[in-house]
Amino acid sequence: MFYTIDILGTIAFAISGVLVAINKKMDPFGILIIAFVTAVGGGTLRDILIGRTPVSWMEDMTFTYVIIASVIFAVIFRNKINYLRTSLFLFDTIGIGLYTVVGIEKGINAELHPIISIALGTISACFGGVIRDILCNEIPVIFRKEVYATACILGGISYFLLRKLPIDSNAVFAIAGGIVIVVRLLAVKFKIALPSVYKEN
Amino acid sequence: MFYTIDILGTIAFAISGVLVAINKKMDPFGILIIAFVTAVGGGTLRDILIGRTPVSWMEDMTFTYVIIASVIFAVIFRNKINYLRTSLFLFDTIGIGLYTVVGIEKGINAELHPIISIALGTISACFGGVIRDILCNEIPVIFRKEVYATACILGGISYFLLRKLPIDSNAVFAIAGGIVIVVRLLAVKFKIALPSVYKEN
Amino acid sequence: MFYTIDILGTIAFAISGVLVAINKKMDPFGILIIAFVTAVGGGTLRDILIGRTPVSWMEDMTFTYVIIASVIFAVIFRNKINYLRTSLFLFDTIGIGLYTVVGIEKGINAELHPIISIALGTISACFGGVIRDILCNEIPVIFRKEVYATACILGGISYFLLRKLPIDSNAVFAIAGGIVIVVRLLAVKFKIALPSVYKEN
Repeated sequence: MFYTIDILGTIAFAISGVLVAINKKMDPFGILIIAFVTAVGGGTLRDILIGRTPVSWMEDMTFTYVIIASVIFAVIFRNKINYLRTSLFLFDTIGIGLYTVVGIEKGINAELHPIISIALGTISACFGGVIRDILCNEIPVIFRKEVYATACILGGISYFLLRKLPIDSNAVFAIAGGIVIVVRLLAVKFKIALPSVYKEN
Repeated sequence: MFYTIDILGTIAFAISGVLVAINKKMDPFGILIIAFVTAVGGGTLRDILIGRTPVSWMEDMTFTYVIIASVIFAVIFRNKINYLRTSLFLFDTIGIGLYTVVGIEKGINAELHPIISIALGTISACFGGVIRDILCNEIPVIFRKEVYATACILGGISYFLLRKLPIDSNAVFAIAGGIVIVVRLLAVKFKIALPSVYKEN
Repeated sequence: MFYTIDILGTIAFAISGVLVAINKKMDPFGILIIAFVTAVGGGTLRDILIGRTPVSWMEDMTFTYVIIASVIFAVIFRNKINYLRTSLFLFDTIGIGLYTVVGIEKGINAELHPIISIALGTISACFGGVIRDILCNEIPVIFRKEVYATACILGGISYFLLRKLPIDSNAVFAIAGGIVIVVRLLAVKFKIALPSVYKEN
């Protein structure tokens, strides 16, 4: 089931990359690269930081095929993708929930401190989008108004709190991932943003 | 002979970096860094992704000396470099042919899938320019109008097709590299670009 | 004592990141990330290039705590930070002196050539700021007008010259670091910049 979620998340991330790249009038090669980087960039940076190379997408071809298929689909149906906006948003949100917890567990396996593991989880979930925005010559959207990362951090803190309770590790995984998803959904629904530090300016 | 080609490619890449950096009014240190990154950035990213560290340019000083000499030459003669434009374009094209095939072979040695190996070859040949453009705060030119990457991908596909024929591995290397070079030369000569996905807009 | 200098440098780097991020109107998460990247980015790139992973800040939590505390402090007192400008500039300068020499010694331990070791030292000291500027969608300031990197390079050359003299290795460390600091202080005081290559334009 995790594998299915992972693939749905990859599709959502790749399509978000295609839409940004089309918006920047890139050529087909540029669109493919931006989609690829958005989908695998976060996990790649995580793997490089902990020294787990070759990085994961180089060893499981499924992701490459899924990304290429998503790009072809998104380019052909780009004018109709609006109808899928809600599904894509859901896939994307479920994907970040999963990636956060997977990243945390990779940190734990590398014997890193909980705070560093949460940072790794957040990097896994968010830095594909950061690299996408840098390649498109934009300040990363996540640094300005998204609660995306905050959801990951809250989910990560829950993960370590839940581990202290007498519950199954699969349940910890699922609940922490669920918290990321719920926080993000609520934040978007109620337009919650981080408190601004610019009030008095 | 490969070593000579490698050095000619490095010179061409470094000089292209100098010209972009001068255009951005950088100081001498900035010019040196941009030249360096353009020349070695693609191979460095490739080495990091497959975990081959310390990265290659750190262990063979020839490249560092060649890049420094190219920078000094290009800064002094920058107003006359137009006369060398054709030679530089040729060195650059021969360089990407070589880097593509070298990158592919590094992927094969790391036991990666052919598609991933082609991606590694393309990264080796193209991502120096991508990092150069990011450092110069531009959307990478290769994402918008260059057939550069397409030439690498076609050469890479040929490489794996040729390997199935009963021919010598040096011949495979040379022919695949030659295909990259010929595709790029033809594309530039006949102004061939990838089909646009923006027709109806 | 080196540890104290390291922490003072980290504080100065983190606060410089906060100020740039606030200037770009980032949200609290963006401010934290930019501060973090400015403080640890140079050392992280150095560690990745030589294959020393997990990278250092993942294994010593002190830096994470210092950076988080510096961010909270700098956000709260951002309107008063001007009064600290001189102290911060001193911490920052002492920090780059230290990071340069630490980076050089990591290069020597990895059996790299002196020129490459100097490059590693300069990367350690300077690339946090480069990554900060890229994430903020600016051409890195160090490529345009800072003598920052030149100070690192001069300090690095001194390091290898001093090693040939019959003096203690701690003294070499301290003197080379001191040269970085003095060169930078003099350059800022007397507004020395690298000679421009744009005179005739």
